[in-house]
Amino acid sequence: MIIHLTKSATPAEKQEIFNRIKQAGLNYEVSHGATGIDLVGVLGDATGIEESRFLELDGVDKVIRISRPYKLVSREFSPASKIIDIGGVEVGGGDVVIMAGPCALENEKQIMTIAQYVHALGIPVIRGGAYKPRTSPYSFQGMGLEGIKLLAKAREKYGLKIITEATGLHRHIRDDGSREEKNVLENVIEFADIIQVGARNMKSYGFLQELAILTKGNAKPILLKRGESSTIKDFLLAAEYLVANGNPNVLLCLRGIRTFEEEKFQRYTADVGAIAVLKKESNLPVIFDPSHATGYRSNVYRVGMAAIAAGADGLIVETHNDPANALCDGEQCVTKDQLQKIKEDAEKIKALIH
Amino acid sequence: MIIHLTKSATPAEKQEIFNRIKQAGLNYEVSHGATGIDLVGVLGDATGIEESRFLELDGVDKVIRISRPYKLVSREFSPASKIIDIGGVEVGGGDVVIMAGPCALENEKQIMTIAQYVHALGIPVIRGGAYKPRTSPYSFQGMGLEGIKLLAKAREKYGLKIITEATGLHRHIRDDGSREEKNVLENVIEFADIIQVGARNMKSYGFLQELAILTKGNAKPILLKRGESSTIKDFLLAAEYLVANGNPNVLLCLRGIRTFEEEKFQRYTADVGAIAVLKKESNLPVIFDPSHATGYRSNVYRVGMAAIAAGADGLIVETHNDPANALCDGEQCVTKDQLQKIKEDAEKIKALIH
Amino acid sequence: MIIHLTKSATPAEKQEIFNRIKQAGLNYEVSHGATGIDLVGVLGDATGIEESRFLELDGVDKVIRISRPYKLVSREFSPASKIIDIGGVEVGGGDVVIMAGPCALENEKQIMTIAQYVHALGIPVIRGGAYKPRTSPYSFQGMGLEGIKLLAKAREKYGLKIITEATGLHRHIRDDGSREEKNVLENVIEFADIIQVGARNMKSYGFLQELAILTKGNAKPILLKRGESSTIKDFLLAAEYLVANGNPNVLLCLRGIRTFEEEKFQRYTADVGAIAVLKKESNLPVIFDPSHATGYRSNVYRVGMAAIAAGADGLIVETHNDPANALCDGEQCVTKDQLQKIKEDAEKIKALIH
Amino acid sequence: MIIHLTKSATPAEKQEIFNRIKQAGLNYEVSHGATGIDLVGVLGDATGIEESRFLELDGVDKVIRISRPYKLVSREFSPASKIIDIGGVEVGGGDVVIMAGPCALENEKQIMTIAQYVHALGIPVIRGGAYKPRTSPYSFQGMGLEGIKLLAKAREKYGLKIITEATGLHRHIRDDGSREEKNVLENVIEFADIIQVGARNMKSYGFLQELAILTKGNAKPILLKRGESSTIKDFLLAAEYLVANGNPNVLLCLRGIRTFEEEKFQRYTADVGAIAVLKKESNLPVIFDPSHATGYRSNVYRVGMAAIAAGADGLIVETHNDPANALCDGEQCVTKDQLQKIKEDAEKIKALIH
Repeated sequence: MIIHLTKSATPAEKQEIFNRIKQAGLNYEVSHGATGIDLVGVLGDATGIEESRFLELDGVDKVIRISRPYKLVSREFSPASKIIDIGGVEVGGGDVVIMAGPCALENEKQIMTIAQYVHALGIPVIRGGAYKPRTSPYSFQGMGLEGIKLLAKAREKYGLKIITEATGLHRHIRDDGSREEKNVLENVIEFADIIQVGARNMKSYGFLQELAILTKGNAKPILLKRGESSTIKDFLLAAEYLVANGNPNVLLCLRGIRTFEEEKFQRYTADVGAIAVLKKESNLPVIFDPSHATGYRSNVYRVGMAAIAAGADGLIVETHNDPANALCDGEQCVTKDQLQKIKEDAEKIKALIH
Repeated sequence: MIIHLTKSATPAEKQEIFNRIKQAGLNYEVSHGATGIDLVGVLGDATGIEESRFLELDGVDKVIRISRPYKLVSREFSPASKIIDIGGVEVGGGDVVIMAGPCALENEKQIMTIAQYVHALGIPVIRGGAYKPRTSPYSFQGMGLEGIKLLAKAREKYGLKIITEATGLHRHIRDDGSREEKNVLENVIEFADIIQVGARNMKSYGFLQELAILTKGNAKPILLKRGESSTIKDFLLAAEYLVANGNPNVLLCLRGIRTFEEEKFQRYTADVGAIAVLKKESNLPVIFDPSHATGYRSNVYRVGMAAIAAGADGLIVETHNDPANALCDGEQCVTKDQLQKIKEDAEKIKALIH
Repeated sequence: MIIHLTKSATPAEKQEIFNRIKQAGLNYEVSHGATGIDLVGVLGDATGIEESRFLELDGVDKVIRISRPYKLVSREFSPASKIIDIGGVEVGGGDVVIMAGPCALENEKQIMTIAQYVHALGIPVIRGGAYKPRTSPYSFQGMGLEGIKLLAKAREKYGLKIITEATGLHRHIRDDGSREEKNVLENVIEFADIIQVGARNMKSYGFLQELAILTKGNAKPILLKRGESSTIKDFLLAAEYLVANGNPNVLLCLRGIRTFEEEKFQRYTADVGAIAVLKKESNLPVIFDPSHATGYRSNVYRVGMAAIAAGADGLIVETHNDPANALCDGEQCVTKDQLQKIKEDAEKIKALIH
Repeated sequence: MIIHLTKSATPAEKQEIFNRIKQAGLNYEVSHGATGIDLVGVLGDATGIEESRFLELDGVDKVIRISRPYKLVSREFSPASKIIDIGGVEVGGGDVVIMAGPCALENEKQIMTIAQYVHALGIPVIRGGAYKPRTSPYSFQGMGLEGIKLLAKAREKYGLKIITEATGLHRHIRDDGSREEKNVLENVIEFADIIQVGARNMKSYGFLQELAILTKGNAKPILLKRGESSTIKDFLLAAEYLVANGNPNVLLCLRGIRTFEEEKFQRYTADVGAIAVLKKESNLPVIFDPSHATGYRSNVYRVGMAAIAAGADGLIVETHNDPANALCDGEQCVTKDQLQKIKEDAEKIKALIH
């Protein structure tokens, strides 16, 4: 941590700053700048110390934290890339891993049809939302536990792994107004092979804690989506929450960020450049979601290929047997044929890039 | 809803679009554009219909939703401004309402000292976080239930109303590693006069549902903070979630948004312009938080006054008896004297603006 | 400048970094961090040194510039607030200065009508665009020199100062396809009392240089608008370009920034929080433009008052005698009555805030 | 154009709206909405009509422009992809075109060394800035005309095409304080094979007009960079300015946009998702600049490959024979070996994607 003093800082103000540093159990050294402004370097481990302790003192101009606030997920402290094993499917080991399925689980026929072709294409993981976080309270909110059970049925029949989103610790409201017995997270933990944390919940820190504590025993993999406007630092700190609370098996997932880009052209801004940043800054695998990042089926293939070229370890893609009648996000679901092309070309590009 | 066709849309494609509209129980009419491109106006209540139903059809260029997706919180449908009564304190009725207190509750002495001067200044509501959503897992996470009880003690002694944040449905972890018996929301509902939903949870829709259901009976007021990058539409839809699930007493709270602005100069971008937009678009009261919106004590007064000039119904302000030793956000806490000036000048400006 | 080394930096890599610092005529000192990572503080005036000189060396993790890159416009180096005198009208001296007029100059009758009521309201400066930078090549591009001459006529009749925008160094194309003799900047310099540089040209550095050089002699005031997404640092560096090239009389003008906020609700995001930042960081006066910042007449008053409450030294406001028939931005032009209220209440708020 | 009325619009207000439409030479039809709110569809070519003409009328809630405001550069009106021939080098025809060279031209040796290896790698176009738009007035401002002449010498020796930036219509200031005889644009037009318009000047519309007029005769290709926060619509309108004023040979160049992403991790946010949008929306070729989009040499390769995978027609890449001593942007310049890999792998990916 570096403290930049004001030009007019008095000796007494400086002394108070030094005292404060000492009180925090740290040390310091002063550089006398050419412009008459001093820098105070704070020595020692300042991880748990707030910038605000110093920022609010007279004579302080700026406080700059230089060291990384995350440790366990950082490549600086753990250089080796983490490979996560999902019942035999390795993510982060060099091969492209595709996860595909509908946005929302709708009914048995839909799930089984999609599972059948996902399996036939050699894709190891099926996705599907049973609990849907919807922007409008009037939109379809998901099938709930019933959907997850159907997904589990597809798993059994086709030997797929399943990933589904835990939207929180509340009890889902069924269509008839009654409520499920267990809360959403409990149901997801019970059935899923990979637990998805959505972008909207990336900063629900209490939820992250609970999730990590409940999965401490089996370390079931968690796919953590980046919040729509979270910085890379905050994204890695959210991953740190999971690891620090007991579950080290975190997959980082990028799915587009919110910028000034126009919505009618693309749903979010595909943050493909962040892939290389994350791979360098962290030891965790990186998955990219081209469906949400673009919002239009016609762009999913191209942006998905871009993500692989940029170094992603895998893709999570929305697909539907009948996009025109999908209950959710139909316009960004690819067809079976498009999915096949995505898988094949992703593997070719992965082999090419190094 | 308006469907803009592609220039090359065929008669068969058009027919399929028309059929799809009919299937959704809606009607349509076609405008033949001068440029050879047709517009299809969808007639009827399309509130529950996804744009995607049409967007993914061949021959469709764009789908534009024109009507507002929120109803209960919209001034269009309920023109009268909502006044919310908090045990005698009216918000939205023309007077400025100030809520003030520390970022985090720290200990009895701190709470009582601050409560004493908040009360002495004629401020009716004290704030204070017992459950702190922190970006880093290594930061102070709040006093939990013990803190809320101290806040309740201050309420008793000084006749203040209390507002505190419910960070979710998890059970708080105490410093000794043990966990509280009830979940965070239950504790907050039991003690608070106003329940705060933080920016990080604005899109935790399951949590919003649960909160609204649990407070349906007494309709305890909820202060809903805008997510750091949520659009105005999404902010109002989050409020709609609360109202549609049973609690109509929602206070909208702006607290700065995330933009490209540089962090060292200001923590967030103060979204003062959104006040006038919300007051026009919605019937709910609007509170502004100048502490988080600026991040620096020296700017809180000015941006607070700006918010009142822009039409806010009140301010929620962080204050501390000893900012230099605050456990959280000390640099944005104002002193007692600054708070007094904020209160007095806010009232003068409110009286002046009409 | 601080250089943060990688954990794995070798002695040879460090030596190369030290050599590089010495070559640049600077000195250094090393802090050995608790985490095994070293910091190198660069000593001496590094203003002219690019971060890239060090960033690209092996063993370097990050390079952080701590000192301000601007000097002449900075309060750190010139603490006294600059007061700019525009022929007797002082900006930055404590009084609110209003500048008002139409977006575009349209014809003699419009200009004289508006000038008459601007003058009658006691507003000292009239604005009006003769050269209009339009997003579409098919929109009205302004009256050109003919418009400026009419504005000068209004100045003569009503004793107003005039501000108009110089859009560049090109020669304006008249409606009949012919071109003006002099370039736009020459015409504006000849006639204007304050030369406006628009947001779109804030980073046209060659144009800024030319403008400063051409006005070196008389130091005619320049109102520099912030680019729609320029950082505060870049905004102040653009002002530094003007001052460093010979013209110290710069007014900083905020006019809203581009964020993810929805366009239909507001044209830009009013950057009211930046006023306090600029007043603290720079010694130059700050003007706010609530017309562009909001885009809707109904919000101009409120956001204008917010800007004054936040510390702005003045407002530049669009007004029109017949907004419904304005050739440009009619929806954000206030009427005479609204303008009167803006002036009167701005003065009251200014008197109140301190 | 669609006009959405307020719920409370009176018959008289509606009549005034209809009159206004008629006055503009257009027609209308009204849809009576289920919610009691009417929509007015404006019929006829509204390209030259401002939204503001209607937006400011009583009874109007929103005005929505549905048709595209650009014509000549739009795929809707000119479906065939434009192929641009640069003296035998075709851009947009299916092959990847690489342009490479230093950020700034520095001296003869540097230019010739780089030209030699660019040529040897089979890269047909060399880039190099003679006029450098720098954020700080104290940074190196470029060699000026002398640099361009050296670039022309390299062209002669190695048979390369040259691209260099025209930063405006000002006269460059030499190191000794004297000024060049011709203005920057004249010099660039005289020597360059492709004229680059930088991101900072994308909205300098007068400059775009002048550039298009001066190159009308030979239609020398123009590479137009997207402004750091310009929307896709505004980017295409800037291209429309060039085409509408006489020069149809425009290459669209993406180079990263400004978002909330942290600067220390990446200079801009790589807008790779915009490639597919532009290819669909416009008929012009799209070039991607991975050097500015990332800001770090180590990410240039990956993001460059991503851009090709996403459909870019070519890359413009910064390279330097001695990055550690580059006068500008050294940390984002790739070496000769990295450039070779970029070229080879870009061609492989291009061949693979379809």
